[in-house]
Amino acid sequence: MTMLERAFAGGSALYDERGFRGRVGFGHSSAILHIDLANAWTQPGGAFSCLNMDHVLEHCARINTAARAKGVLVLYTTTAFDVTDPNRPSDMGLWHRKIPVHLLRTGTSDVEIDSRVAPQDGDIVITKKRASAFHGTNLTSMLTANGIDTVVITGVTAAGCVRHTAEDCISEGFRPIVVREAVSDRVAEAIQWNLFDIDAKFGDVEPIDTVLDYLHGLNRFADR
Amino acid sequence: MTMLERAFAGGSALYDERGFRGRVGFGHSSAILHIDLANAWTQPGGAFSCLNMDHVLEHCARINTAARAKGVLVLYTTTAFDVTDPNRPSDMGLWHRKIPVHLLRTGTSDVEIDSRVAPQDGDIVITKKRASAFHGTNLTSMLTANGIDTVVITGVTAAGCVRHTAEDCISEGFRPIVVREAVSDRVAEAIQWNLFDIDAKFGDVEPIDTVLDYLHGLNRFADR
Amino acid sequence: MTMLERAFAGGSALYDERGFRGRVGFGHSSAILHIDLANAWTQPGGAFSCLNMDHVLEHCARINTAARAKGVLVLYTTTAFDVTDPNRPSDMGLWHRKIPVHLLRTGTSDVEIDSRVAPQDGDIVITKKRASAFHGTNLTSMLTANGIDTVVITGVTAAGCVRHTAEDCISEGFRPIVVREAVSDRVAEAIQWNLFDIDAKFGDVEPIDTVLDYLHGLNRFADR
Amino acid sequence: MTMLERAFAGGSALYDERGFRGRVGFGHSSAILHIDLANAWTQPGGAFSCLNMDHVLEHCARINTAARAKGVLVLYTTTAFDVTDPNRPSDMGLWHRKIPVHLLRTGTSDVEIDSRVAPQDGDIVITKKRASAFHGTNLTSMLTANGIDTVVITGVTAAGCVRHTAEDCISEGFRPIVVREAVSDRVAEAIQWNLFDIDAKFGDVEPIDTVLDYLHGLNRFADR
Repeated sequence: MTMLERAFAGGSALYDERGFRGRVGFGHSSAILHIDLANAWTQPGGAFSCLNMDHVLEHCARINTAARAKGVLVLYTTTAFDVTDPNRPSDMGLWHRKIPVHLLRTGTSDVEIDSRVAPQDGDIVITKKRASAFHGTNLTSMLTANGIDTVVITGVTAAGCVRHTAEDCISEGFRPIVVREAVSDRVAEAIQWNLFDIDAKFGDVEPIDTVLDYLHGLNRFADR
Repeated sequence: MTMLERAFAGGSALYDERGFRGRVGFGHSSAILHIDLANAWTQPGGAFSCLNMDHVLEHCARINTAARAKGVLVLYTTTAFDVTDPNRPSDMGLWHRKIPVHLLRTGTSDVEIDSRVAPQDGDIVITKKRASAFHGTNLTSMLTANGIDTVVITGVTAAGCVRHTAEDCISEGFRPIVVREAVSDRVAEAIQWNLFDIDAKFGDVEPIDTVLDYLHGLNRFADR
Repeated sequence: MTMLERAFAGGSALYDERGFRGRVGFGHSSAILHIDLANAWTQPGGAFSCLNMDHVLEHCARINTAARAKGVLVLYTTTAFDVTDPNRPSDMGLWHRKIPVHLLRTGTSDVEIDSRVAPQDGDIVITKKRASAFHGTNLTSMLTANGIDTVVITGVTAAGCVRHTAEDCISEGFRPIVVREAVSDRVAEAIQWNLFDIDAKFGDVEPIDTVLDYLHGLNRFADR
Repeated sequence: MTMLERAFAGGSALYDERGFRGRVGFGHSSAILHIDLANAWTQPGGAFSCLNMDHVLEHCARINTAARAKGVLVLYTTTAFDVTDPNRPSDMGLWHRKIPVHLLRTGTSDVEIDSRVAPQDGDIVITKKRASAFHGTNLTSMLTANGIDTVVITGVTAAGCVRHTAEDCISEGFRPIVVREAVSDRVAEAIQWNLFDIDAKFGDVEPIDTVLDYLHGLNRFADR
């Protein structure tokens, strides 16, 4: 047992004793939300590149196939900026002081969704400016107006945009379901501890088979 | 004196007696915010076309010249939707049930800023999905991160997007200055009563000469 | 026909021709939202006092009786501030520069809901700091988490908090139903023009009988 | 070197190479923000009790003394709910499905700020309903309207409310400074990994001496 595994076991025991780690569960109507599956994160060799993305994208493609077969809305985010000169008024906020967001320019292939999980007709791509898919975007009102109560979350990074999105998701009143095998990061251990924290307090971290079973079991959108 | 003028005079007297209609004033750092000066609103003959837009655009162009001379950030909004089929999950929200937003399609010339006030390098265009420029956009955090405390508002419509933007602007903690001659609508009287309400409670409605004097009197951005 | 009636008739004709003034309609699950029915607004003689409040409160009481009989959630707002000295950092924002919000002090009877429509066990009172019931409050996430899609709005003022609330309501993805006879203001004409604007673009302004019929027709919450 | 220390060392090296872990720095005007220093978290023996709170509160008290001496605004959050029956429409959102928030009742001593760091006249206590101090509260607009650009964050828990607050803080355009010794949690390791993640991407985690030096070096509010 590694030190992290011991920390997770000890934390889980404490949480269980105190009534944390409950299940939020699937609701009545879902959307898929892929966080930052754009080339800057999915392709190797860049500042934003993440670990093990070939496998993550395969899982995301399987989720998309299952979701589209049932008319479930598929949403993507990317992160891109119109003004990346830090000496001018820009849309980067203060974030460029912490991380190299000036590399993420609107209209470049870096911020396009990876072709292996390319959006199809009827999917919606949201360009966000901050970590959370909910911050400074119309995601909340789009989910509400479409009667969606459950958000299946994949993507990168576990310690950044995925975690902040899951936290905001339950805060806004939606059920976050994070797909364990479809999330990554740049630091291997950060995947583990962030999924641990999310599952304890903010959303359900579920294996991909559970998510696929759920999607396969839905009635088609048109039948509802 | 028309009925509306009498209502405004009576309302103003009551407000003055009770301590309403105060001045929010200009702060230390401004941005210009042009609401929906895209072709669907500025050109005649469409569902969204507004009154007197040639004059409004001339005023907006003068404001831009004065602002850019001093390095003041120039922002624009447009309103556009990726999915306009009301039978599919879309980004139109419930708004298509009230007004014909399905006509405003992402990527069409209708939702492009009118060439008479075309954005220049360093300006930022925000695509919004609702009436207010603040709703579902990164406008608040962009203003905050850039240290801007005052927003000079122009555009259309007085009864819709301009008013909701001014209300949100002061709610978020920024000073709204609405340029009287640079605002329009489809219904002439609605311009008058909405400017009356805004000035009474939400922001300062100022003549264009006051705004131009303010801009001319600023130091250049680079000098600050 | 008065000048305002002519403006409304002309505006309505133009809107109808262009596809505005649609119906948002009632959804599947409602809440009642009473805006600022606290003593500062409902009792005569103060800076915030509104017209005709005895009648407004009678209508609101009838709505409450009908709503509670069916287990429909009843929400109230009040507006109150913890620090009202404009020379100290306060929670009044910039609003005190426009209107006399320094008179609305947390914990005083002025900001308590009028006893004629007193909250009952299970009702929720939201203390807001700005015009809209949605701004800086947990209203959106409370509605979402409780599966509510329709908000029946009453209260004051038409030109201020009621209008901004209705605008935000549809922006967030909920259906705003404004009860015509249960809304007031300090300026009589402002009631008319704001209800006109709301009905044209943001929500349905409905007579109280339509709202009561709707509530009477619901199944009880426990049966759903 | 423990496994966590190795993970942090490896992660830091990767981040430094790629341009992460920048410094957001102190700005021009600060507020102190104490997260959930109420008895449910600060006193032992409860579901929400955290580790080492006597020391955390001592540090927070020192920060308060330094801040008040310079007229810096001191803010607190607590988390409390008006309706805690999960079978009724409530203000708990979906969060009660993950963690035992039904124990946090409005008006009880559990949700009162610990008397060892009791609020003083002019301080402001924000009652929040979710993890982040920014979610569903007027914090953003209060900071903006008061011209504050930097937020010094303390409190609990590292994995929950402190982290989500820091993430939202920089997203909104404010500088988050998290005080290393003044933050705790229920799981010891979770303090470490969350401070690591925050410092890498969202805000500066600084030792208390740096924060006290900063506060001591300020001019008094009245002099500005």
